[in-house]
Amino acid sequence: MIRVGIVGATGIVGQQFVVALQHHPWFQINWLAASERSADQSYGEALRDKKSGARRWFCVEEPDPGMLDLPVESVNRFDPSRVDLLFTAIESEQARELEPAFAQTTPVISTASAYRMEPDVPLIVPGINSDQGRLIRHQREGRGWKGFIAPNPNCTTVGLAITLRPLQHRFGVESVLMTSLQSLSGAGRSPGVLGLDILDNVIPYIPGEEEKVQRETQKILGTLEEDTIEPAEFGVSCTCTRVNVAEGHTEAVFVGLGRRADVEEVKATLAGFAGDFAGKDLPSAPRRMIVVHDDPFRPQPRLDRLAEDGMATVVGRVQADHVLRHGIKYVLVSHNTKMGAAKGCVLAAEILASEGYVG
Amino acid sequence: MIRVGIVGATGIVGQQFVVALQHHPWFQINWLAASERSADQSYGEALRDKKSGARRWFCVEEPDPGMLDLPVESVNRFDPSRVDLLFTAIESEQARELEPAFAQTTPVISTASAYRMEPDVPLIVPGINSDQGRLIRHQREGRGWKGFIAPNPNCTTVGLAITLRPLQHRFGVESVLMTSLQSLSGAGRSPGVLGLDILDNVIPYIPGEEEKVQRETQKILGTLEEDTIEPAEFGVSCTCTRVNVAEGHTEAVFVGLGRRADVEEVKATLAGFAGDFAGKDLPSAPRRMIVVHDDPFRPQPRLDRLAEDGMATVVGRVQADHVLRHGIKYVLVSHNTKMGAAKGCVLAAEILASEGYVG
Amino acid sequence: MIRVGIVGATGIVGQQFVVALQHHPWFQINWLAASERSADQSYGEALRDKKSGARRWFCVEEPDPGMLDLPVESVNRFDPSRVDLLFTAIESEQARELEPAFAQTTPVISTASAYRMEPDVPLIVPGINSDQGRLIRHQREGRGWKGFIAPNPNCTTVGLAITLRPLQHRFGVESVLMTSLQSLSGAGRSPGVLGLDILDNVIPYIPGEEEKVQRETQKILGTLEEDTIEPAEFGVSCTCTRVNVAEGHTEAVFVGLGRRADVEEVKATLAGFAGDFAGKDLPSAPRRMIVVHDDPFRPQPRLDRLAEDGMATVVGRVQADHVLRHGIKYVLVSHNTKMGAAKGCVLAAEILASEGYVG
Amino acid sequence: MIRVGIVGATGIVGQQFVVALQHHPWFQINWLAASERSADQSYGEALRDKKSGARRWFCVEEPDPGMLDLPVESVNRFDPSRVDLLFTAIESEQARELEPAFAQTTPVISTASAYRMEPDVPLIVPGINSDQGRLIRHQREGRGWKGFIAPNPNCTTVGLAITLRPLQHRFGVESVLMTSLQSLSGAGRSPGVLGLDILDNVIPYIPGEEEKVQRETQKILGTLEEDTIEPAEFGVSCTCTRVNVAEGHTEAVFVGLGRRADVEEVKATLAGFAGDFAGKDLPSAPRRMIVVHDDPFRPQPRLDRLAEDGMATVVGRVQADHVLRHGIKYVLVSHNTKMGAAKGCVLAAEILASEGYVG
Repeated sequence: MIRVGIVGATGIVGQQFVVALQHHPWFQINWLAASERSADQSYGEALRDKKSGARRWFCVEEPDPGMLDLPVESVNRFDPSRVDLLFTAIESEQARELEPAFAQTTPVISTASAYRMEPDVPLIVPGINSDQGRLIRHQREGRGWKGFIAPNPNCTTVGLAITLRPLQHRFGVESVLMTSLQSLSGAGRSPGVLGLDILDNVIPYIPGEEEKVQRETQKILGTLEEDTIEPAEFGVSCTCTRVNVAEGHTEAVFVGLGRRADVEEVKATLAGFAGDFAGKDLPSAPRRMIVVHDDPFRPQPRLDRLAEDGMATVVGRVQADHVLRHGIKYVLVSHNTKMGAAKGCVLAAEILASEGYVG
Repeated sequence: MIRVGIVGATGIVGQQFVVALQHHPWFQINWLAASERSADQSYGEALRDKKSGARRWFCVEEPDPGMLDLPVESVNRFDPSRVDLLFTAIESEQARELEPAFAQTTPVISTASAYRMEPDVPLIVPGINSDQGRLIRHQREGRGWKGFIAPNPNCTTVGLAITLRPLQHRFGVESVLMTSLQSLSGAGRSPGVLGLDILDNVIPYIPGEEEKVQRETQKILGTLEEDTIEPAEFGVSCTCTRVNVAEGHTEAVFVGLGRRADVEEVKATLAGFAGDFAGKDLPSAPRRMIVVHDDPFRPQPRLDRLAEDGMATVVGRVQADHVLRHGIKYVLVSHNTKMGAAKGCVLAAEILASEGYVG
Repeated sequence: MIRVGIVGATGIVGQQFVVALQHHPWFQINWLAASERSADQSYGEALRDKKSGARRWFCVEEPDPGMLDLPVESVNRFDPSRVDLLFTAIESEQARELEPAFAQTTPVISTASAYRMEPDVPLIVPGINSDQGRLIRHQREGRGWKGFIAPNPNCTTVGLAITLRPLQHRFGVESVLMTSLQSLSGAGRSPGVLGLDILDNVIPYIPGEEEKVQRETQKILGTLEEDTIEPAEFGVSCTCTRVNVAEGHTEAVFVGLGRRADVEEVKATLAGFAGDFAGKDLPSAPRRMIVVHDDPFRPQPRLDRLAEDGMATVVGRVQADHVLRHGIKYVLVSHNTKMGAAKGCVLAAEILASEGYVG
Repeated sequence: MIRVGIVGATGIVGQQFVVALQHHPWFQINWLAASERSADQSYGEALRDKKSGARRWFCVEEPDPGMLDLPVESVNRFDPSRVDLLFTAIESEQARELEPAFAQTTPVISTASAYRMEPDVPLIVPGINSDQGRLIRHQREGRGWKGFIAPNPNCTTVGLAITLRPLQHRFGVESVLMTSLQSLSGAGRSPGVLGLDILDNVIPYIPGEEEKVQRETQKILGTLEEDTIEPAEFGVSCTCTRVNVAEGHTEAVFVGLGRRADVEEVKATLAGFAGDFAGKDLPSAPRRMIVVHDDPFRPQPRLDRLAEDGMATVVGRVQADHVLRHGIKYVLVSHNTKMGAAKGCVLAAEILASEGYVG
């Protein structure tokens, strides 16, 4: 078993890591770290609100009793070499400081945005650009690390990039315009979105989100060079909004393709996309990367977010668009806290482990 | 006073007409028509659910006591010449049959889509293309009617067309891509959208809506010829979705302009748009056609739908878009049952009355 | 295998029966019946909306491919003797007519209210009053049927009765006051509750519901006599409201007990309640009938409705009440379409089958 | 004009005070105080989020331009004698410290719970127990203050107490059981209720709320003695829950009366309740204290919360209850941030001013 640690274990993303890892056949949770406030307690105690007695656990899946007994250590007093792999679920500023220290000895799979755009850092969406893992060698050499940092992309980017990948390979992609209808869980809990603000409402702005989607999509779908990634050349423009949905981001996408393609060809291309881990039998890999619906009322976040346990991107309403050159349009739903966050990180770790970068 | 009748007076749109007209300085409600089931009762009785005793009134504004005493007649046994003007709030199939009969003698302002695309029928969005009223003369001659039919556009089209108009005049418009996040009231109540279906959800499809928006926008912003309208040449492509909002459609718009324009120029153009009824002092006209926000968290449907009593289109997040040629993007909120339906019809009627087509 | 039929198979409750039965170890779905409109098609075809192409399937669990191939027959042209057991999911008026005809030859487990209050009809809540099954013998004799009718109670009654049962046995119950916060799925889909009506709202009235809860609770917890049930003598008064929750009824209960009991005693009594099927190893039986939380923020419908796959009643906030004599109060959550409807019927059928009344 | 100050002016309740006072015919806002962070800026600047540029204004009603120019001072560097009356919208702990200092010179109307239960402090619900104002004389003497402290009750208590008052006077009240379905605005914004936590959900616990309702109701409806209030003797027991409603608390109430009363008598008593300020012509007083509906689907928070601009308590579903002795039950809706908070305080201030306690 590969020994793993979770940094930021008491937060909502940390809890999602616990859920994704607690019955994992390859990875064994050996270490939980959190802020000083939670340190030196059992995980169960650290989750408990001292005032009301409530357990602050936010996933539908329950933590195992054994998990609740694990000690939580302070993130500041930890020897990362005790584990083979770290998953981090911390804020970007903290990540910028802590992750390089961890990476001295230990691979770090991160949900933070801090290192996503560094030239020697891969930005892997499982199934579509695993070859970016090759940058790790270069990263290790350049930085003198035994470990490495491999962040996952922004959750809104993940579903978009997954659907663009097979289109790019088959038809080419010239332009992308996207409007997202993002779920509340994407905003986390600190402070998160107030019920008062989102009830009977749409919030048309998510600070920093549009820039991330635009920039990260180009890196993810870029060309892997010797020691860096050349961003994809097509333009990406998006408007990111928040809607009153708990989980699952919906995105309305308009794509200008590199050549003419009819709707059936596009649907077949999306539905037939196998993922670059096909044949590897990874524990967290979905059977289908993309599920395509003919029913025009799909995808819907409530009905489709859990397809393949939240690891598939679900697409529908594939139509011709007559405004963009060789245009098509479609709607996708992607689970922002499964493939788009913790469980996507675990799948990325499985890929990297299967390729010898971990353990 | 101009005597008006409301056809379909007991339904939700009919009720909105009652609200928009009951204190109107020019128009006086003289006649209410509904289906046989409601006929030969007072309006108050017709609204009452016989089984539960509940009053089926759906507007926040209450009907006047005097309104509740008005008799409701069957739509089939009515002499339209008794009034000077009719507002119709009926289904499209019924409109196709009834409205020409009414128009023999009486002007008809309609919320139905039946006649929107007829070549001799104007498609007026108040404030932006009132000159289409000139088609009425041609319509009367060609059809031998004393009255006429003037439908309002689809509610989703209204806000889009209002914001495109000043851009078209100032910069030219080359291409439009739009994703709508539409409210529940747009679906009406028969059957409407079930709470079960929209809670924690987005529905990515509204049958027929996208075609209407695309087609009607081009007619509204088209060129008025002698006896018809030449549709605008730019392409319009949209994806229409339903979100859990009671009232107010939100639209994320990407526009390719005819020439380069910076964001401040675009904002000033939108905010400065006066409406072609400026100076006419119409009772239902908003002071501002378009309200532009700098606050990036606006517009929000709950906060902005009632701007200018639901008659303004509220715009925010105006940004450059680098994918479309001379691209800009913005988000708008438009009240689908005020400017987008009954009250917009009343304002159109005021325009037509002020120009001598009514009464 | 016991051959079963589902009457009303295309509706939402019928679909829930399909989900509860399609992998059942004892029962095999042999026959699906629906209205003429759905007849003579495969189940998959009957679910498909002809106009939009959408599949009108409303459960999160998907139907098996094999299920979709089953033929649907008209409810009017059916020989019930072809199956060993029928589950009915039809309106009360239709049930009043059809169920006696079916019961001539075949046991009928019904979700309709039509026969619930007949003196020779048991009203079984699985686990708390299975002995009412003994009325079946009397029912068969009196009516000359080979089969029988056994309805399940109203979904709001189920959770209340389950929590009252152990209190009644241990302390006695003198009075019950309850306010329900019911979910949307309890209203079904024809017409169901409109999103417009429940968004940002509470609806304080559910026609007929309060009377059902009051009457049925007394029958369920009544005394089984030779050939009928003597209703429990304590009063039950409730106010039933609808809130914007998809599934899971929440109930705030105040109970006057027969003798003084402290909070810990009440909690232990609830948590320790075993269900009268304990030891029988029934496929659909929950491990725990009642789950009791100490966390004061529980139970919550979204977090607790699926406890024991929706078959447990989840209780929290157990407190002393100083207004009623020997008063206690608590909040419960019960899954209205699992234990409260289809799956509760299946468990009742398992009980009756295990006691020899079926097959 | 009476010069007033608002302490805690930038928070949500402070903003509601601004809305309730900015066009007031008697009171003129002269002073705004807030925490150090907001001090020495204009009110408009203090409301602006420095990072995003958004204005953090939470009321539907807009602040007057003149208001936005008023300077905000630190609550710690203020001479309360500069105004004739203070409204405070601060946390209870801070109120405990600051309010007595203010009351040395100036009357304080407070939304904080700190002093509600002090024996010499009135707990006025406008219209039902204004005579408690007489305690002010005693309070001044005992404490040596020129001003006084008069808190408003908890928002959930207000609607309950208003409906109980006429029942108490006419029939007597023996026992009260209540379940509340409270809105999100009652929880404020720091931290408030997360959208993620309340979507598709009910939260069955509001810390401290039930105790407040029970205790305060007895004081409000108690007997005014020479120098204190003897609490009402009837028991009050409640369960307080949070539902996904923006504004307006719904309460399902069961009352045991002192004598038998039929439903029509109860309805007439409620509808006929005039309020003890009748005839005084106070600016913020509702025409009707209690609105009674016969429509069984009313009251609903979305439809009824703004009755009489949020100053009426709206009652429906008045029914006999056969569990409590002389029992009746009903449902009420009360606007928690209008009559239940800022605007209720303003009305209380009008009462006290009209009786000579202010100015």
